[in-house]
Amino acid sequence: MKNVEILDSTLRDGSQGEGISYSVQDKIHIVEALDELGVKYIEAGNPGSNPKDMEFFQRAKELKLKTSEIVAFGSTRRRDCSCAEDANLQSLLSAETKTVVIFGKTWDFQATEILHASLEENLEMIRDTCAYLTSRGRNVIFDAEHFFTGYKANAEYAMKALEAAVVGGATVLCLCETKGGAMISECAAAVKAVTEKFGSAVKVGIHTHNDSGLAVANSLVAVENGATHVQGVLLGFGERTGNANLSTIIADLQLKMGYKCIEDDNIRHLTPICKRVAEITNIPLDTGMPYVGQNAFTHKAGMHIDAVLKNPFAYEHIEPETVGNERVFLMSEVAGRSMIIEKIQKFDSTITKSSPIVSDIIKQVKELEHQGYQFEGADGSFELLVRKAIGKYQPFFKLHYYKSTDEYPLIEKGLYSFAQIKIEVEGNTRLAAGEGNGPVNALDVALRSALKKFYPTVEQIHLTDYKVRVLDSKSATASKVRVLIESTDGSSTWTTMGVSCDVVEASWLALVDSFEYKLIKDIEKKYQKLI
Amino acid sequence: MKNVEILDSTLRDGSQGEGISYSVQDKIHIVEALDELGVKYIEAGNPGSNPKDMEFFQRAKELKLKTSEIVAFGSTRRRDCSCAEDANLQSLLSAETKTVVIFGKTWDFQATEILHASLEENLEMIRDTCAYLTSRGRNVIFDAEHFFTGYKANAEYAMKALEAAVVGGATVLCLCETKGGAMISECAAAVKAVTEKFGSAVKVGIHTHNDSGLAVANSLVAVENGATHVQGVLLGFGERTGNANLSTIIADLQLKMGYKCIEDDNIRHLTPICKRVAEITNIPLDTGMPYVGQNAFTHKAGMHIDAVLKNPFAYEHIEPETVGNERVFLMSEVAGRSMIIEKIQKFDSTITKSSPIVSDIIKQVKELEHQGYQFEGADGSFELLVRKAIGKYQPFFKLHYYKSTDEYPLIEKGLYSFAQIKIEVEGNTRLAAGEGNGPVNALDVALRSALKKFYPTVEQIHLTDYKVRVLDSKSATASKVRVLIESTDGSSTWTTMGVSCDVVEASWLALVDSFEYKLIKDIEKKYQKLI
Repeated sequence: MKNVEILDSTLRDGSQGEGISYSVQDKIHIVEALDELGVKYIEAGNPGSNPKDMEFFQRAKELKLKTSEIVAFGSTRRRDCSCAEDANLQSLLSAETKTVVIFGKTWDFQATEILHASLEENLEMIRDTCAYLTSRGRNVIFDAEHFFTGYKANAEYAMKALEAAVVGGATVLCLCETKGGAMISECAAAVKAVTEKFGSAVKVGIHTHNDSGLAVANSLVAVENGATHVQGVLLGFGERTGNANLSTIIADLQLKMGYKCIEDDNIRHLTPICKRVAEITNIPLDTGMPYVGQNAFTHKAGMHIDAVLKNPFAYEHIEPETVGNERVFLMSEVAGRSMIIEKIQKFDSTITKSSPIVSDIIKQVKELEHQGYQFEGADGSFELLVRKAIGKYQPFFKLHYYKSTDEYPLIEKGLYSFAQIKIEVEGNTRLAAGEGNGPVNALDVALRSALKKFYPTVEQIHLTDYKVRVLDSKSATASKVRVLIESTDGSSTWTTMGVSCDVVEASWLALVDSFEYKLIKDIEKKYQKLI
Repeated sequence: MKNVEILDSTLRDGSQGEGISYSVQDKIHIVEALDELGVKYIEAGNPGSNPKDMEFFQRAKELKLKTSEIVAFGSTRRRDCSCAEDANLQSLLSAETKTVVIFGKTWDFQATEILHASLEENLEMIRDTCAYLTSRGRNVIFDAEHFFTGYKANAEYAMKALEAAVVGGATVLCLCETKGGAMISECAAAVKAVTEKFGSAVKVGIHTHNDSGLAVANSLVAVENGATHVQGVLLGFGERTGNANLSTIIADLQLKMGYKCIEDDNIRHLTPICKRVAEITNIPLDTGMPYVGQNAFTHKAGMHIDAVLKNPFAYEHIEPETVGNERVFLMSEVAGRSMIIEKIQKFDSTITKSSPIVSDIIKQVKELEHQGYQFEGADGSFELLVRKAIGKYQPFFKLHYYKSTDEYPLIEKGLYSFAQIKIEVEGNTRLAAGEGNGPVNALDVALRSALKKFYPTVEQIHLTDYKVRVLDSKSATASKVRVLIESTDGSSTWTTMGVSCDVVEASWLALVDSFEYKLIKDIEKKYQKLI
């Protein structure tokens, strides 16, 4: 099995993506996650460009990593000074990483038009910088910026630039497809030419962008043509259309093409680690991302579901567990009945495919979906819907009213919202108040306070996630919203939903479903033998 | 220039994606958009599987399309009946399309294990169905389901299945990579074998899925190996990880590889048409989507921006206008000063790169970004921030207080929220009330009512978009939210933002910025010569 070393640039090139911004603490957490996955290099920033990166490298010195090595990134020295005088290079050295990545120009146009250096000067800058850093004990990876565009424009010069890096002592020549415009065959031919010329002296690497939708493909093709170092970003984000998605590349190389990028045993952590990185980054993990997305093994079409139930191999390219993901079945108007039946039978095993109640439920689901409900993500609300339909439901309380108020200026620091609610349980009414830093928070407190006398276990409920989706954002502040709430009681987790044009009411509906779901589960557990 | 015909399956395979559901009217609108783009075929559904699809085909008969042809999709006849007796095939015929797509099994395992047919029976089903539909005057495209898996498992049988379709009269053999698991070289070899064997008699097509991140790459490679018919989904959505993204494929083939898929003149409509399709589908268009995403030509890193300002060719693989997209510059902590300067100079041309105020503004932006603000998407709020920093701002009113209330049960149908606000303008206080179907709506009404006496032009403001993003969703109902509001006064459009743990306060802040921005622009226009 051939080895391919992985350099993850989530913290450097990835952080160029829109809306992505890491604190120093975030960076540390991401380094820990990537180390757990076991990539060889973690490119963590440019200590010369920004003080936050510098602070990170100071703190990173104390990290004890199992597998990965943190590397710093910088550019070749400026045209008009020596390496020793170049402030950015000095910052790079002060990061004290064993390995550094240096990017330089290999496209003649860039050297002359952007750097305003002569072609020979640019070669000297590359040679000098690599030699200087090598002499200071650093292992140097040379990022050949715009290599593919340069190779197309002036192959001889692009090769000379690589040679300058090799002469300077670089151990990896990483060919960067900076503009993301190269087609597969172009990329293959250029990598082949470089590995033929330099492959015996140094490692050849690949760094691609997704502007033509080919970042993954070009990385794989580079490996097939001799590259043994692949740079990318675990979740594929980055400037413009993003960097090469390493979660896809690692899985493709290791599960399908016979290369080894990380320890075999770590592949099954791929999905949970990707989820963690998305969370630290504070972006939703693309549900359709290959291998690790929530829908990567999700089946909706009726025909497919029937076949997958018969044999998963029929519609899955790998077993979801291999990468730590899982199989999911969704409802929809084209879904066969088999999956809805499967869900219904969980709480009533007497219902079969031909029971008339199944059509009723499907009809109701469609009607609610039309209003903006989306049961695919809300198992708790779906169970309540089915229970109501089959008569296995009774309300736990009656709402007389709720009232929620927001005021500004604040009466007390942090106190934005007030709620009042009146409920009735078996003839007893109860009035309760809540306050909080938002209307939903205040209603949650009030409802809990009103119910706890009757149902003490509501205090176990902890809300763990809250999402708001504006459904028809074109009608602006009068738009319909869907609120999803994820709750846990420590042992299990459920998601409920509410839809309304009023965000407060939508939240209220999701909240009530969450409380009722919990209370039903408690009764099920308590009277397990009776029901 | 070689022609490649495109079949878009947004309405059939695409609609299998999670959260995607079209009304008949939506389908009509998508057909119109795709016809404008000029794809050859629009696969619009399976009339036998679902009554909504049937209704669509009835209505579609009246559509007058310029370029595209609507096609219906169905499967080979059932094992145990003739084509004339097969209800699905009869539905397919009643759709009265000139062309039909028929999918059949070409993987031996699927024939025996999923259909429970013998290998010979399955071949008869393919042959019969194609022959029957051909005899009824239909042009038949044969979708060879699971072809690549089948070819790997039993190449001889997979080829026999294709032959059965050719004998039955199919004019296109579309090879489907149903599980999305094939690597590039596998895909290339199989397509090559098929084009060598059948390419002189029929067209060869390709239909891929993105489970290995290679849907686009495998489609392009298939074309390079002789395929002249490409199936996919304009925006790439679909079951699991999605279908091949046609917006990327069309741009790659036509702008870079010398093939013709649609009229040259239509390529520049690609981005607007993709936006329209996303809107009809009610999904956000992936901002990082190649060619058509909002960030496809967006530049953030300081160094890149300097270079792009010097010469766009330095960091862009094509000109954004070619595909109807546009160049955007973003702010961020690594952004060079040049871009912030450029924005600042719009309203104060005396400020230069070295003005101390620039550092102050950058510091403030960083501080606010730390709190959850994100100026990248909120030009209006950014301008107000800069104006406040450079002293080109004065408040238009003073807020004494606002109070917003939500009540349930409703007092009046549709009336969820009430707002009361007290403001002061030049010593005159004004109390106003608002009501609406949500707290933001009610506050908007109240604020407008309070201000209009002093500033009549606030009535021109129309809120056109409203977004809520939960920032740290792990603290659940006490999370911080960012609200973005897009406003227009008919002639220009601006976006403003508010951040708070209270969704009502966040909306209020965005609302106030929107009103102030409008009032500043009015004054600028009125006193243009004086300022």
